[in-house]
Formats: sequence, C-alpha cells, structure tokens
Amino acid sequence: MTQHEEIRPSVQESLHRVIGILRNYEEDLVQRADTTERRELVTALVRKQDLAELQRLLDALHPADVAYVLEALPLEQRLIVWELVRAEREGEILLEVSDAVRETLIAHMGAAELVAAAERLDTDEIADLAPDLPREVMQDVFKSLSAEEREELRAALSFPEGTVGALMDFDMIRIRDDVTVEVVLRYLRRLDEMPDHTDQLFVVDRENRLKGLLPVNRVLVSEPEAMVVALMVPAEVKLRPDEKAQDAAIAFERYDLVSAAVVDDDEKLVGRVTVNAVVDFMREQRENELLAAAGLREEEDLFSSVWQSARNRWVWLGINLITAFIASRVIGAFEGTIARIVALATLLPIVAGIAGNSGNQTTALIIRALALGQISGGNARRMLAKELGIAALNGLLWGVVVGLFAFLIYHNVSLGLVMMGAMLLSLVVAALVGMTIPLVLHKLGRDPALGSTVLLTATTDSMGFFIFLGLATIFLL
Amino acid sequence: MTQHEEIRPSVQESLHRVIGILRNYEEDLVQRADTTERRELVTALVRKQDLAELQRLLDALHPADVAYVLEALPLEQRLIVWELVRAEREGEILLEVSDAVRETLIAHMGAAELVAAAERLDTDEIADLAPDLPREVMQDVFKSLSAEEREELRAALSFPEGTVGALMDFDMIRIRDDVTVEVVLRYLRRLDEMPDHTDQLFVVDRENRLKGLLPVNRVLVSEPEAMVVALMVPAEVKLRPDEKAQDAAIAFERYDLVSAAVVDDDEKLVGRVTVNAVVDFMREQRENELLAAAGLREEEDLFSSVWQSARNRWVWLGINLITAFIASRVIGAFEGTIARIVALATLLPIVAGIAGNSGNQTTALIIRALALGQISGGNARRMLAKELGIAALNGLLWGVVVGLFAFLIYHNVSLGLVMMGAMLLSLVVAALVGMTIPLVLHKLGRDPALGSTVLLTATTDSMGFFIFLGLATIFLL
Repeated sequence: MTQHEEIRPSVQESLHRVIGILRNYEEDLVQRADTTERRELVTALVRKQDLAELQRLLDALHPADVAYVLEALPLEQRLIVWELVRAEREGEILLEVSDAVRETLIAHMGAAELVAAAERLDTDEIADLAPDLPREVMQDVFKSLSAEEREELRAALSFPEGTVGALMDFDMIRIRDDVTVEVVLRYLRRLDEMPDHTDQLFVVDRENRLKGLLPVNRVLVSEPEAMVVALMVPAEVKLRPDEKAQDAAIAFERYDLVSAAVVDDDEKLVGRVTVNAVVDFMREQRENELLAAAGLREEEDLFSSVWQSARNRWVWLGINLITAFIASRVIGAFEGTIARIVALATLLPIVAGIAGNSGNQTTALIIRALALGQISGGNARRMLAKELGIAALNGLLWGVVVGLFAFLIYHNVSLGLVMMGAMLLSLVVAALVGMTIPLVLHKLGRDPALGSTVLLTATTDSMGFFIFLGLATIFLL
Repeated sequence: MTQHEEIRPSVQESLHRVIGILRNYEEDLVQRADTTERRELVTALVRKQDLAELQRLLDALHPADVAYVLEALPLEQRLIVWELVRAEREGEILLEVSDAVRETLIAHMGAAELVAAAERLDTDEIADLAPDLPREVMQDVFKSLSAEEREELRAALSFPEGTVGALMDFDMIRIRDDVTVEVVLRYLRRLDEMPDHTDQLFVVDRENRLKGLLPVNRVLVSEPEAMVVALMVPAEVKLRPDEKAQDAAIAFERYDLVSAAVVDDDEKLVGRVTVNAVVDFMREQRENELLAAAGLREEEDLFSSVWQSARNRWVWLGINLITAFIASRVIGAFEGTIARIVALATLLPIVAGIAGNSGNQTTALIIRALALGQISGGNARRMLAKELGIAALNGLLWGVVVGLFAFLIYHNVSLGLVMMGAMLLSLVVAALVGMTIPLVLHKLGRDPALGSTVLLTATTDSMGFFIFLGLATIFLL
C-alpha cells in the first residue's frame, strides 16, 4: 500500500489531506466565535490560507477523484469543498458523483450556475444529467445549443436508461472512403485533439451510411498514398440505439472492442459507444444487483439522514413482511398439530431454510443461463430434468441427515421419517419454483435478476411449512 | 430482434444452424444402423457434407462465438463440434469458454494437441490456461518457448488470481524518448500489425524504466520531426503486479483508460493491462458474486451430470444445515414456553425474517462503502450511529405493525407488546451484526462480499428466535 502511494499520490491520501484542512478551517471558525476584533482579522487570514490550499489540492485532482472526495464527506463539509471547485469543472464532476450525492450538490446550486456547468458538457453528457436538472435549467441549456447539438441532445434524451442509445456519444470522426491516408492525416491534424477512445474512424458515404471502419493503428502504419477504401474493414458489430445496453456489454466483452458504431434502420451512423461507457454501465449494473439483492431501492448517500435512508428500505421490508405474514398463517393453520407435538415447532426452520437455499441455487443458474442466451426450448426441458434430479438426490441425502437429527433429539422414528419426506418433497418443489419464477419473469419482459429471490423465498417458506406440517398431521396424529 | 439479426448474423442464429446440422447428422447415423451396405455409402457421403457445412460455419465465427456455441451444446454434440474446430483456433477458443466447459474439452484432447494449441498463444494467455493443463503438457510448452517468453510465462504464473499480475499481458510497444516521430513511425510500420488495444506507446530508458507515455493519437497528429520527449505525457496511473485486480478495475473505470503500465519496485516496465482484461475481470467478478450469493461454489456446465452439479451445491447446503440446526435448538430451548402458548410458533418466522432482511440491507451498504474505500475511523462511527438510528426507527414502525397483527389474530395485548419489543430489539441487533460482520471480514483480509450474508442470516435467525421466545418466557408465562 505504501509503495502504491509513492507512485500515485493516492486518492485516499488526498481525501485525508482534505479532511485535515477542513478540520483546521473549522477550528478557526470556532475560535473566531469568541475573540476580539483583532484576532478575528488574523483568523480570517488563516482561513483564507486554508481554503487556498484546499483549492490547489482540488485543482490537481482528476474530476473522478474530486467526486470520490465529495462522496466521502458529510454534507456540510461537502458543500464547502464544492464551493471551491472551479466553475468549469463542475459539470464533469456532477457526471461522476453518485445519484444521491449529485442531488445534494444540485440542490445548492443556482439556476445560472447549473446552466453554465451543463453548457460545458457534450450533449450525451447533458442527457445523463438531465433527469436531475430543474426544467427551466434544461430549457436554458437547450437555447444555448447549436441546431445540430439540439438534435443530438433530443436523440440522447429519447432513449430510456438501459438502452444502447443512453450509452452512446456523438464524438465519432467520420471520413469518406475515396480519399487517401494523407488527406485523412491532414484532416486529423486540423483537430485540436482527437476525441477520447478514438481507436477507429467511421467511413460513411454521402448519405451518412456506414460503409466500414478504419482502425487508427492501420492509419499509422500505412503509406500516405494508400486509399481509405483499400484499408478499411467491415463493421462486424453494429449496434442499434434501441437495443439493450446489456447486449452492447456482451458484444464489447466478447469481441474486445474499444468503440462500436451505432446505426439506425437505414444503416445511417447515429453515434458510437465506447468501452468506458460500457465499463460504467457494468459497474452500475453490478451495484444495482447487489443493492437489489439486499432489498435497497437505490444507493444511499453515506451521510443522508436516518429518515431518508429508512424510506429507501421500506418497500422491501414491507414486501418481506407480507410474505412473512402469509408464512405465519400457514403455520397457524396447523396450530392444533403443533399443540400436540411441540417438537414440530423447533424443526420448522430447517425444512424451509434448506428448501429456500436449494431453490436459490437453481434460480441463480437459470438467471445466468438466461443472461447468456443459453436457454432454448430443448435446453429448458433438459435443465428442468437435471434440476429435478439434483433436487431428488439432495432431498434423499439431506433428508436422511435431518431425519437422523430429528430422531436423535426426539427418539421418534415416525418424526424422523416425516422430516425426511418433507425435505425430499420441499426440495423438489423448490427446484420447480426456482426454475419457473425466473423463466416467467423473463417471458414477461422483466429482469429475472430483480425480484426472483423474494418471490422464491416467499414460496419456499410457505410451501416448506405446509409440506412439513401437512405430512406431520397425516402421519403423526 | 429481427432487425438485429439482419445486420449481425447473430450468434443465436448460428447456434440454431449448428443444432440443425447436428440433428441431420445424427438422423443419418441412426439410419445407417439398419441399412444395406449400399445405402451406408450414400449416408456416409451425406454425413460428410453435413460436417463440411458445419466446419464452414464454425470457421466463419469469432472464437468467442464458437465458445458460446460449445457451451450451449450437450457434451456429445459439443465434442463433435470441437473435433471440427481447426487446430490453430483451439487455443483461443479454450481461453474463451467457461472453466467447466474447458475441462470437458481438455479431457478429450491428446497431450500433443494441447501443446500445439497452447504454443500458439501469448505467454499471458498460456498462464490463464495453465491451471487446467496436465503437468507434462506445461513442461512441453515451456520447452518450446524462447528464453524471454519463458521469463514472461514464469512471471505471469507467479501472480495469483485477483492480482494485477494475473491480468497483465506483455504486448506493449516500447520506444525511447530521444527519437523523432518519424523514427517511431518507421518502427511501427515494420511490425506486421500493432497489438490489440495499443492506444499508447510506452517510453522507457535504457534500463527499461518507464519515463512516460506517448498516445497513439498524438503520434497521428504530430509533425514527423517532433521529438518523443516533447510529445510524451507522464504516466498518471502505474499499476504494480501485486496490487489487487479490483484496484486496477477502479482505476480503469475512474480514469477511462484503454491500457495502463505495470511497473515493478524499480519503476521498470514489466507489462501492461488492457481494458478488455478489465472487462473480463468485471464480468467474472459479477458472476462469482451472483453464484456465491446463491451458494454455488463455481459456475456449472449446463450439461454436467446431476452428480457433478449436486456436489457443487453441497458445501453451502451443509453450512446452511448447520446454522438451521442451531436455530432449531434455540427454539428447542423454549419448548416449554411454546407448549403453553402455541401462537408463538406461528409468529416465529416473522421476527427472524424481518431482522435478517434489515440486517442484510446494512451489510450491503457497508460492503459497497468498503469496496469504494469510503470507510475511515470517523465515518465508521457515523455510519454505525446512523444504522442504529434506522434500526430503531424501523423497529418501532414495523414493531407496531407486527404487534397489531399478533393482537388482531390472537386478541392478546401482552402478546402484541412482546412481539413489538422483540421486533425492535432484533432489528437493532441485526444492524449491529450486519455492520460488524463485513468490517471484521475486511480487517481479516477476506472479501466481505463472500460469506457475509450466510453469517448474518445465521446470526439473525438464532438471535431473533432467542429474543422473541425469551421475552415471551419472561412476560407471558
């Protein structure tokens, strides 16, 4: 770790320095409260120094690192730092911070400041900020754009999150195929700088239809007299703006792309997707899955209020409560049985727990296979047969284990046998349900990764209780 | 979807064609079993045609797509297809398939075939295959390499999975800083092809120490007489081979990199990491998390046997069983109480379920904050206070709801109050435990994302039962 910091003045280190300076600054503020006017002047100077140092530090940081610092600070300190960020960097930094933190920053900015920050961004970036900007700010931003930019912004805004259109930018370099490498090089030299992630130039005809791609590295090693048409390669991957972003991610991952063309139905080039947009999408997707799996509606600002955070968690707890109530009533239906054999109450969590766990394993594999497009008619039947086979095998194996456990504790052979039977049946039901739920969600066009687990656990709990107590009522009473 | 297939002969479509051809082929095989010799000859010819068509189809597919087809086929058909893959592509395809499927392919290849496949790969790719190759194959591969390549392979093999060293490759182009762009261009033209993802050239001194980076796009727009030293930029991100791969992923995501230098303690350039390695790492990481969350040791081949698959799931089910046994014995300790108030048995799953859910929300947020490096001493105390605050708030709110539920069903005020108190206490305990477990795992140097959930649920189940039944024993008997 120390080595690491040597070479890259690490972000963590910068954060610690920011916190240190802020602490000085706040101490000065406290002192000031009870001093004479002369001392006040001195501390005001010290404070100015603190802030100047802080500003120098911030100016040297990458926008993404400033975002990191802002996210790690409590609201009050966060706003002090935000005040010190240069106006021309505000837009980039707003793009980098998490949604929750972005809201706190935007809430403290004036309309004019927001318009100025947004104007400095590319149109696809403005579209990313748009949902968080007040309507009148967006109107002013629109007015400040050129006709072409307005068109781009409108296009970018028209695609919902999770589509290729929402990932794409408009920074592609277009060239014609009937020119030489020399002409291309002359054209490139006229640009101040090439856009980030320009690993290929897009060859289009007069109607802006994509004819091929010219990798930059090919330009580099070619003779100046060579014609573009002779050097260009066909575009093997062409994305559509309304395709799922997930499909783009799969294409980038499979074919190791740095950028890819986005074309419309007429093969006209409308934008490009770069690998950094895909990497951001993958990171967000992973975070959303982790949060959703734990039942959180969205990421939370570390320093949001207890009240705000609690509300973020209620939907899920509420859903969970309803399924728990249902499970509770299933047990309630067998109160008479439990009153006569109290041992049943102690064994309840075992059957439901293992069934839920085993069903979850099935669900996770189906979700993965669905995501990879591996499930067709024939495969689905095969997988169902296999999952049922595994459930039966596991049911027998673990059924014997829990049956023995019940027998050893309660010295009751019938109880052990009922436990064993309940285990076998529950696991088979869990496999069926664990397979059905993601497949049905997928058929309905919903993301099976979100929600499958709750639905499954709700079902396996109630079913497990029902099967176990039902068998007990039949065979033990 | 249909549009999509129009432009990119989709992988799914290719898969369907493969399956179609294989079906013909197998029908021919069946026919052959009961025919005269003459018909046999005819069908043999047809079979040859089928296979030739299949081979043409496979040759046209990207290695990653062949891998997709192989993963989607049952073992027998998979091996027919594998036989048809040209020897020179076997290595690339082995790199692309999942671990489970790779095992099935390697098991059916001879040692000589494996050596030939591995020899065609880059040293960093051989290192990726190494764990699955028989020892004698690796020895033969080693022998076939040049001294420099052996050194690279040894280096690549020496870094464990999950480190930067395991992600890096050796395909970087090194240049000196005292030459002109023209010299660089002449050097580049001598290479047949530039390595993939070459967005920058690495400027080193005579001792191979990294002095800076020369972006390819800068070379493109510069005058031939310009000196490298005047054009190069400092390397802001330098990775170390023993750093965590996760840190590299964060750097690529934050700074939108396409490639980054890997240097040793003396600042000597040892390799580079490219964004495609990072994208693969992120995808694997996400899959492992999803599988681990469901209690699967590793990804499964869709078509592995029931027996193999069942074993993949046992560890987790076993662990779960033990925690369920413990929870069961906690209830067992209160059998006397339950015998007198059977209603308690029906309410058990509610307290434990909600506590587990709420604790999981805390755990997920802490894991995320740990991954982003947002937890320092001061922040941890702040977060603990906040989580306890949320737990108390939620405990009161949901405590009233479940208390009312209990009262409405059993018309017993004391039971409702006990339920309410148990809910409040359980949620506070769940918040404490949900925060402690990932922090302790992190301190111990383990990945808190793996295992936190089991440990948490095990604790909240037992604690929930204990608190609820304990309070009932004290106040209701």
